[in-house]
Amino acid sequence: MDIEKVNSMDFGEFVDVFGNVIERCPLIAAAVWSQRPFSDLEDLKKHFFAFIDALPQSGQEGILRCHPDLAGSELRRGTLTAESQREQSAAGLTSLGADERLRLAELNAQYRARFGFPFVLAARFSDRAAVSRELARRLLCPSAQELRTALGEVKKIGSLRLADLLRADPAKP
Amino acid sequence: MDIEKVNSMDFGEFVDVFGNVIERCPLIAAAVWSQRPFSDLEDLKKHFFAFIDALPQSGQEGILRCHPDLAGSELRRGTLTAESQREQSAAGLTSLGADERLRLAELNAQYRARFGFPFVLAARFSDRAAVSRELARRLLCPSAQELRTALGEVKKIGSLRLADLLRADPAKP
Repeated sequence: MDIEKVNSMDFGEFVDVFGNVIERCPLIAAAVWSQRPFSDLEDLKKHFFAFIDALPQSGQEGILRCHPDLAGSELRRGTLTAESQREQSAAGLTSLGADERLRLAELNAQYRARFGFPFVLAARFSDRAAVSRELARRLLCPSAQELRTALGEVKKIGSLRLADLLRADPAKP
Repeated sequence: MDIEKVNSMDFGEFVDVFGNVIERCPLIAAAVWSQRPFSDLEDLKKHFFAFIDALPQSGQEGILRCHPDLAGSELRRGTLTAESQREQSAAGLTSLGADERLRLAELNAQYRARFGFPFVLAARFSDRAAVSRELARRLLCPSAQELRTALGEVKKIGSLRLADLLRADPAKP
């Protein structure tokens, strides 16, 4: 899909296509549509990130709270979004042994209790061993720093999702 | 459900229960959770509305763009949220004749083209005749006024949904 195609979308199409760039926050895509036309992928990305940065802290935490746990109950129940399912699969989180799953569930619960939002990581850049290691490491970080780190991961995930969507153009080489 | 129950919820439960108080914007419930404890229904409502009021205009328009058309394609396809389905039914919009449906579709399209967001109305306070009448009237309003009116309807819808959820307590008279 090229940027002219993106710029020609009405808000309904735009939200259908870009509504999950930020996990379960179609509101953000719906807001970004106001800023069209976009010059390219980088420009589109910039508007998604600017919206996130301009939110009050409660809103930024709200974005994090719309994310599922990694290897958590939604993966087991099959209620992940298509994007999350693909990303968790790519990191090998769909084929954990019982011990590894239990260990991650415990770390996820500690993290949620400590920070008030779930552990968010761009899983596509990771693998199962790295996920636990990173979770154990970030569990010890100060809250303000951890909010920044987690929002950075939201942006990495959003970048990859946007790039996938804009690459998905059979008319382009 | 009483307010103590609400205040005892972790963010996962809170978003499950209140995630659609603002149509398809779980981000807002997820942000409001940061403000607990709440003293009562009015206080909870106040935090939802304050979040909406603090958004930049693009975000407020984004909220509107997450709403379905009244008597539109989502109603036909059966993809409305449970809350919207109930509200559109209550206004008689699920049993329109072909002529009325076509008339509303035309007005909805004109409204979307003029304002860049869909026509939002607290349908539960309305009936099928009043919906078309109100849509035709608001189509002629200045943009800035119409944004305010539409956000007022979002708040009426949210108030009713919150009141429904807090009333839904078998332990209370």
